[in-house]
Amino acid sequence: MRTTPTVPAATNEPDLPVLATLASAPDFARGYVKDLRVRWALEEIGRPYRVAPQDEAARDGAYREWQPFGQVPAWRDGVVGMFESAAIVLHLAMRSDRLAPRDPAGHARVTSWVLAAVATVQPQVDLANGAAKDLPEASRAACAARLEDRLAALDAWLRERDWLEDRFTAGDLVMATVIREVDPVALEGVPRLVAWLGRCLDRPAFRIALAAQLSDLGE
Amino acid sequence: MRTTPTVPAATNEPDLPVLATLASAPDFARGYVKDLRVRWALEEIGRPYRVAPQDEAARDGAYREWQPFGQVPAWRDGVVGMFESAAIVLHLAMRSDRLAPRDPAGHARVTSWVLAAVATVQPQVDLANGAAKDLPEASRAACAARLEDRLAALDAWLRERDWLEDRFTAGDLVMATVIREVDPVALEGVPRLVAWLGRCLDRPAFRIALAAQLSDLGE
Repeated sequence: MRTTPTVPAATNEPDLPVLATLASAPDFARGYVKDLRVRWALEEIGRPYRVAPQDEAARDGAYREWQPFGQVPAWRDGVVGMFESAAIVLHLAMRSDRLAPRDPAGHARVTSWVLAAVATVQPQVDLANGAAKDLPEASRAACAARLEDRLAALDAWLRERDWLEDRFTAGDLVMATVIREVDPVALEGVPRLVAWLGRCLDRPAFRIALAAQLSDLGE
Repeated sequence: MRTTPTVPAATNEPDLPVLATLASAPDFARGYVKDLRVRWALEEIGRPYRVAPQDEAARDGAYREWQPFGQVPAWRDGVVGMFESAAIVLHLAMRSDRLAPRDPAGHARVTSWVLAAVATVQPQVDLANGAAKDLPEASRAACAARLEDRLAALDAWLRERDWLEDRFTAGDLVMATVIREVDPVALEGVPRLVAWLGRCLDRPAFRIALAAQLSDLGE
């Protein structure tokens, strides 16, 4: 992944920024590890980076000073060491108008959507894809209904919009990484959301980022 | 809640900023509605506000243009209309050094912790307090173990720190609103986290914010 360091001089970096990723992942996780969000953001803004793959043992050791929960991704550049995929995307978005408007109002809207993606939608998607499968029928139906509510809200929001705001931003980027994990059956009643997801995933930056994650995981 | 408008002139506001809250809440939710995070942040920075209580019917109507999922809180000030409690706290934190350092590196650290609170810790807390209760024993134990991992990671991080970073920030604020929802039994093995939670909840701004929410809900 090491490429010619063409990082803007203004960031004053001695070297390329570093993205901590997984050294290996089970089949079902390939293409879905959360460093994908950061890779996608980096491709959108054309910023080179290198990866630091972490194996499982490493993630329980000194790595915890970089990422306190032992998860990936984590990030280090000339400005900061930080963690949480959505936080890193917001950090990058503050430095490039390709991911968010530079004015405070526009930035606040993007922040709202990024947080909605990870705090309001992702937990319902994870529950439906995970623990809910072991629930008794009534509780499982309640989980499915809560996810359906979220998806319907997004579908309604997109009634007269191509993107969550008036152009593609980091909000679409993070939300799309969440919605692409939804079981296709649950997407049958939300055609505008499906069309929006298609627009997001058709972006060259997404396809490059996905290919990079799969390649780094040995696919 | 309406107080003399002493909002800084620089924000160019014709009136006080507005926080959308619930018009009513069941007993178990009082003191835990997510506008609490924003009220706490506002008290920390000494910014007056007024509340706009939303009843259930309103939250399915025009309110969705303000908050697409029909949830509370939502926020409107002279700069922006926005939603998601943690996003609003980050927005406020960009405008006051009482909630985050003003330098990009310090701000990025705070962003990491706010996101960790709502994306990495909150879903495990919600699962343990909610759907997990209906799971078969083995799955319930797996949920409890994941929550325990998160709590242990925070406890380890706080080994030589009074706060998540070198002083109280919006990261502590949002994380504390998550950790105070954890079943006390699950906190028995994490004494540093408990001590940190006590420091957070002892802050006058928290106590004022909590009293304001309870009062507005008629307690």
